Amino acid sequence: MSALTRRLLLERLGAAGGLGAAMLGLRAMGVAWGAAPSPLPALPAGHGVGRKVIVLGAGLAGMVAALELRKAGYAVTVLEATDRAGGRCRTLRTGDVVTETSGATQRVALSPGLYFNPGPARIPHFHASLLRYCREFGVPLEPFINENRAALVQDDAAFAGAPRTLREVQANLRGVVAEIAAKGLARGAMDGAVTVEELERLRDLLRRFGALDRDLAWRGDLRAGAAVWPGAGDAAPEAPPPLDLHQLLRADFWAYNTQHAEEIDQAATMLQVSGGVDRIAAAFAERLREVIVTGAEVTRLRRTETGARVAWRDRTTDTARAEDAHAVVVTLPGPILAELDADISAAKRDALRELLYMPAGKLAFEAPRFWEEQGIYGGISWTSRDSTQVWYPSSGFHASRGVLLGAYIWDEAPGRRFAARDPAGREAAVRADLAVLHPGVDPLLQSAVSVAWGEMPFQKGAWGEYTAAQRGTIYRAIHRAEPPYVFAGEHCSWLPGWMEGAVLSAHAAVAAIATNR
Amino acid sequence: MSALTRRLLLERLGAAGGLGAAMLGLRAMGVAWGAAPSPLPALPAGHGVGRKVIVLGAGLAGMVAALELRKAGYAVTVLEATDRAGGRCRTLRTGDVVTETSGATQRVALSPGLYFNPGPARIPHFHASLLRYCREFGVPLEPFINENRAALVQDDAAFAGAPRTLREVQANLRGVVAEIAAKGLARGAMDGAVTVEELERLRDLLRRFGALDRDLAWRGDLRAGAAVWPGAGDAAPEAPPPLDLHQLLRADFWAYNTQHAEEIDQAATMLQVSGGVDRIAAAFAERLREVIVTGAEVTRLRRTETGARVAWRDRTTDTARAEDAHAVVVTLPGPILAELDADISAAKRDALRELLYMPAGKLAFEAPRFWEEQGIYGGISWTSRDSTQVWYPSSGFHASRGVLLGAYIWDEAPGRRFAARDPAGREAAVRADLAVLHPGVDPLLQSAVSVAWGEMPFQKGAWGEYTAAQRGTIYRAIHRAEPPYVFAGEHCSWLPGWMEGAVLSAHAAVAAIATNR
Repeated sequence: MSALTRRLLLERLGAAGGLGAAMLGLRAMGVAWGAAPSPLPALPAGHGVGRKVIVLGAGLAGMVAALELRKAGYAVTVLEATDRAGGRCRTLRTGDVVTETSGATQRVALSPGLYFNPGPARIPHFHASLLRYCREFGVPLEPFINENRAALVQDDAAFAGAPRTLREVQANLRGVVAEIAAKGLARGAMDGAVTVEELERLRDLLRRFGALDRDLAWRGDLRAGAAVWPGAGDAAPEAPPPLDLHQLLRADFWAYNTQHAEEIDQAATMLQVSGGVDRIAAAFAERLREVIVTGAEVTRLRRTETGARVAWRDRTTDTARAEDAHAVVVTLPGPILAELDADISAAKRDALRELLYMPAGKLAFEAPRFWEEQGIYGGISWTSRDSTQVWYPSSGFHASRGVLLGAYIWDEAPGRRFAARDPAGREAAVRADLAVLHPGVDPLLQSAVSVAWGEMPFQKGAWGEYTAAQRGTIYRAIHRAEPPYVFAGEHCSWLPGWMEGAVLSAHAAVAAIATNR
Repeated sequence: MSALTRRLLLERLGAAGGLGAAMLGLRAMGVAWGAAPSPLPALPAGHGVGRKVIVLGAGLAGMVAALELRKAGYAVTVLEATDRAGGRCRTLRTGDVVTETSGATQRVALSPGLYFNPGPARIPHFHASLLRYCREFGVPLEPFINENRAALVQDDAAFAGAPRTLREVQANLRGVVAEIAAKGLARGAMDGAVTVEELERLRDLLRRFGALDRDLAWRGDLRAGAAVWPGAGDAAPEAPPPLDLHQLLRADFWAYNTQHAEEIDQAATMLQVSGGVDRIAAAFAERLREVIVTGAEVTRLRRTETGARVAWRDRTTDTARAEDAHAVVVTLPGPILAELDADISAAKRDALRELLYMPAGKLAFEAPRFWEEQGIYGGISWTSRDSTQVWYPSSGFHASRGVLLGAYIWDEAPGRRFAARDPAGREAAVRADLAVLHPGVDPLLQSAVSVAWGEMPFQKGAWGEYTAAQRGTIYRAIHRAEPPYVFAGEHCSWLPGWMEGAVLSAHAAVAAIATNR
């Protein structure tokens, strides 16, 4: 194709306004696009005609599998034990009810327009498969502020337990590390590895990296915030002094909190769904209305000559049901599948029993937006206490009220402590932690609602948490197909706990069904 | 006040939903709130009754001064040379016309709903005075993504001129700096400064800061992006190898680009106005409708016995006008005021002539959102070429089309080169630079529009750019009052180029008028 022809074609495609067309054109011409979008199962349209698949679980993984299988002509039924599709992809609004295994019940009482995502809430920008569905379904997205330098970090072990701003800690960490590196250069750490000219560049790099003085020492900088903020006229800004190194070393800030937004899963741009993450689930459920059966608690799974028989209990009528299928997509959370009456392998069952399904939890309040009065617009504060993370809303700025996520807890021990309390006990514990980050605001916090995923019926945990070693031992047994059963869900991916992991695992499951035909 | 009384009072204030009331209550009780909000001029309501002030310029500084003076009872007239209020706080939409000093004219042709802020576009979260007006006026805000790790950095001098992702460069910088610091520790750089136990903590800090290996070497990490992205089943992620240190040292990325979001002015959270920054200007203009006179080009400024006489030309009717006032707030941009026929001091005039009013410029395109297909949602790419910065829209994700800021140029030399070209020449230059960052997209770029601030009548530059030395020499002469004249505008602040600088300078001017009564 000549350059001119190419140009004309692209102009036409671009002018038509269809990005898809223009992008396809560019790709067809060999233009490179960085990370390739993840492959959709490319099954011919009639591939599944005459074949029946039962999907266990109407969470994201199950609904993605069902949608793609139907596109390929399969007859599909999705069995969902709870009374709603979406699984952990859920948003709570006023009037919603949360009932735990213990029977403890909370009725959500948030002001109109306010909501709380107790499960997944964030979409990293490289989660291309989930984002493709969002685009296709018109699910509105907006930025999620995952790092805000005005937010706080607090560690009971350092700085007398007082919170510091993230900007101050980040600037001091860069300053300290760069200064030590400069001392290393002075002691010949890079002699021989770089030329004399490069060594000079390296010194300049360190100076700029850490905001060091001319003599390569960290003596504080406005990056850390201001002792006197810049103003008009004679109001020149003044940087705060450096933090005490001994205190900084005592703090565990730098173990994870300050590196959080550097990690691939957490780095900018982070996105969220405008109006609540369950819009994603709703978009799938809308397209699968005829095939999702809610209140269907799977009770037994057995191979047959032509596939498998799935038995379930209709929870609404308390009647036993059963249906045969050529294949079954099993997306049940690990702790549920581990105890199901099913002819899966002992290896898979043992692996599932070993896997920690994280007892993570969240607790939200409604409050007037006091944090914005402190210059905190979205983002996350951290505490060394059980509450771990506090999230400020990334949208609706300057509205009179908002939802403050008072705690997002995901380590095992604090997660279990959180889950062990009743909702009132959790609220009291989170209020106590918040008082350390935001003294005096306690009376402003209202309408608490909490979800401890380990206590949720048919879920019993937030996600499969693999150790590095377990990726080499139990992981394969958990995700591999045992025809006619194929397995999906975030725990069958390298992105556990993320919606993208559920989506990609579903695509893999669909591909496995096609392969195993 | 007893703890109980306090709690009850705050609960009542909080429940009433009024944040202001609750916050005032908290403040009255001595609760600390981090950075104090900047002081509003606290003039008694009748303070200015019987006094007349003329404000020169209906940009933000002029309008803020006018608004606050009117609150205190002053009679105010605002003279604006152009045909619209707002000054550089401007948003271009379809049908708008941009005419430069040379007569070169562009008519904006963006699709409905799309817009372009050629001047200020961002609001740092600590710009409390501007944010207070936004809250008061109901100007809707949303996050501006100021750092996106999926965006690109490109330097002709390194990596064969090919762009790298910001995530890769950031991860490598942290890795390299932390590794050198670790070598410094091994060579005794901190011996004596910290205890043996602290030294061990410091090693752990470096390992986590830089994502170093167990042996404290930088060998690459998923923070840098992925050679293989994490998937489902067996698709384990693989980190890319470290960047070549010699190439990294050749690149100027680290001189500013990669530190940009660390600086106090640029750090998260960054905000923007939903729908265009000129909503701020419009909110002020709406409240000052009766006192703003557009098309009024000030021609002469002279002291009188009771204050000053301001002469202007009505550009619509080409007639000469004049009016007396007790005081005059002069917010004219530096290059305009420097050449005005006015009895200001020679020191001020000389200082204004020395001040560089930055010839910054921007150029925008409309395009289908190809960048989102690459996983770029908002943020900024950097090039060593004249175009400097490329901005991707921080909202409207997945819409069919968007406004791509192809160039934001603010250094003096490239700014002058940009300004020296006609609009078509600028467009061609920016297209050539964009081809390096985004090969193949040229045909998708449409409806270019550019603003070179040095070429804009009655503005002649984007902001006052002080060197550190000039803060000690010319700055004071520029901002200080010469009664009955007081001076405002971003160049009269420590936040030049920022709307907050204009706002704070206006507050200072109002206070000066009150003092000089």
